Order: sequence, then structure tokens, then C-alpha cells
Amino acid sequence: MPLEFWFDFASTYSYPTAFRIEQVCRDAQVELRWRPFLLGPIFNAQGWNDSPFNIYPAKGRYMWRDLERVCLALGAPLRKPSAFPRNGLLAARIACWYEDEPWIPAFAREVFAANFADDRDIADAVTVASVLEKLGLPSSLMSKVESPEAKLKLRAQTDRAKTNELFGAPSFLVGEELFWGNDRLEAAVAWARRASVDATR
Amino acid sequence: MPLEFWFDFASTYSYPTAFRIEQVCRDAQVELRWRPFLLGPIFNAQGWNDSPFNIYPAKGRYMWRDLERVCLALGAPLRKPSAFPRNGLLAARIACWYEDEPWIPAFAREVFAANFADDRDIADAVTVASVLEKLGLPSSLMSKVESPEAKLKLRAQTDRAKTNELFGAPSFLVGEELFWGNDRLEAAVAWARRASVDATR
Repeated sequence: MPLEFWFDFASTYSYPTAFRIEQVCRDAQVELRWRPFLLGPIFNAQGWNDSPFNIYPAKGRYMWRDLERVCLALGAPLRKPSAFPRNGLLAARIACWYEDEPWIPAFAREVFAANFADDRDIADAVTVASVLEKLGLPSSLMSKVESPEAKLKLRAQTDRAKTNELFGAPSFLVGEELFWGNDRLEAAVAWARRASVDATR
Repeated sequence: MPLEFWFDFASTYSYPTAFRIEQVCRDAQVELRWRPFLLGPIFNAQGWNDSPFNIYPAKGRYMWRDLERVCLALGAPLRKPSAFPRNGLLAARIACWYEDEPWIPAFAREVFAANFADDRDIADAVTVASVLEKLGLPSSLMSKVESPEAKLKLRAQTDRAKTNELFGAPSFLVGEELFWGNDRLEAAVAWARRASVDATR
């Protein structure tokens, strides 16, 4: 059964997941689907108008330290962004509109790296354009996602996240089974494998 | 370097940790210290008058499902308590006052099992008395922790948790290095091992 990786470009722990998920799924022969969405509306519905890591400072300080350890263990470069959370709307619209294109994993990884390794403002179209350029993709992709259809697709995807009771990122869905957090990737992959084995019996 | 296991008897993920931590530390030859405290005052300081798993229902429903998977994988029996969170004050006073006694790990495990495997009310002195009896310990231990000194010790321990910026349970402290969550136990143990190796160099 395929594994859906639900992520938000502002989500800190989605960065190490994006860094490692393709290898983990490839090793386990699990089909991976990238599902960008926006955490903002979900946090708003919980009464938060900012990241909980900013609202609860002790939790926030812990998260940055923990993320440092997690990224170090993975070999993923990390520089604490000078602004957090950054607005990933433009990048999310691109990732959502083109989500099944073969270049999406590389695009997503580069956007995460811009935010969390290079401390660049991913809300800025210049940053997103430079990512597309690096990947040899036309910058016209950016204007295409300003269409009502592209905006609606990301909104519908975020609604689907709500319907599936996602409350944070990264999250993984295997059918209706939900897993939350970079540290649940292995459990989600194991679940997807078991579901596939059961289906072939 | 010793590893401190900070727990609250009402904390759901502290249960699987209590179930497995002795074996994990023994295998790694890491010295383990049990540090009961109360999450309530820490949650209150964050503006919560209930468990966040009750305040945020989607997160709560996910937690119970995830806990089920985690406990199943460990072989730890789990029955969702009919009341949550339960008041672990009496048990915490006992565990805190006698925290370095050799029977504390068994006592803590039994209290957790009463709450999360047997759905018994750990706030009730009868339940705590039955745990002491099961372990062959005198019930007089219960009245001893009604002393001002015993109450003060738990309060001071909770203050120490705050000073160390604990915001949830289970948490692990290795010196000043903080780890949060049952899924960070291995990282905390590895940290304690490295700290010990460095110290002997």
C-alpha cells in the first residue's frame, strides 16, 4: 500500500523526513506519495495563530536542540532560520499542483534546504525561482500556480488533511492509518509493507 | 553519566517507557534514576487546565491509537483508561519520597499498569495500597508521605523539572541535556554512554 507523506515547508521536523524518506521507502519497496498541505489553517482551528514552538517557548527551545541532534545523526545540514515559521504558500502551491511530477521530491528537498540549511526566505519568489533554476525547471511554473485551480487544489488538500484528522507535520497516511512525526516514519513504512503483503495473500 | 527518567503517573507515553527502560539501560550499562514529578503545574503554567490530549481532540484520538501500536509492539498490555488523566499525586509522593529505594522501579511499573493496563483508579488509596501489598511493602509507607517534608520534596522536584525546562513526560535528562518522549529513550541512552566514555578518557 502506498505511503503518503504529508508535509508543510515551514515544519521543522518535515525537513529531516524529506531528507531521508525516499531512501527509506526505496529500501522497503514502499510506494511514496508527496502530499504538501498548509498547517496554518489547522493550527488556527486549534486556536493558535503562530507555531506552537513559538507559543510555548520551552517546547520551542527543546525542538531546536532536538532537531540539531536529529539532523546531525542524519548528516542533514541545519542552520536555525532567522525567521520562523516562514510562509511556504508559494512553494506549497507548486508542490501541490505538480505533486505527482517526477521532480517534486527534488524540489521539496531543495525548498526545505533553502529554509533550514541556508536560512533563505522561501516566501520570496526569488528563492523559489532559484530552486526551480537549480533543477533546470522553467520559472513559468510559478505563475501557473497563481491560477484559481491551483489555489483551490492546495485548499482542498488542506481540507483533506483536516478530514483525516492531521494535527501536525510531518504526518504519514497508509490508507486511513495515521502516523505523526519524523520518528514514526519507520512504523508507517512497516505498516505499508504489511498492508501490501496482506493484499497479495 | 546517569540517565534521569522524569515521569508522571498520568502520562500515557511514560507507561511504555516505564515498561522497557530498565532493560534498555541495563543492556547499555547506563545508570538509571527514577524522577517522578507532576505535569499538572507545568501544564497550568502553559495555560492548560487539562491534558493537551483532551484539549486537542484530534491529537488525543491519535495518541490513543499510537499508544496502542507502541504498546502492542512492546508486548505491554494496554486498556484505555475510562478516566484520563488520573490523579497520580499519592503515588508520585511515594515514588518521590523513596525514589532511590530498590523497590521504586517495580512500584512505578505496577502503578502505571494499574492505570493503563487494568483501568484502576490510581488516585484511590485502595489501589495504591494494593500495589504496595503486591510488592510485599507495608501500607504504612502511604501515611509517611503525608508529612510536610514528603509533600515538599515532590514540590521541589516539580520545580526542578521547571528549572530544567521540562514541558512533558516522559523526559530524560543526561546532565543538562534534555530528551522528550518515549521515542527518544535510545538517543538519551546513547548520550549517557558517550558522556561516560568521554569522562573516562
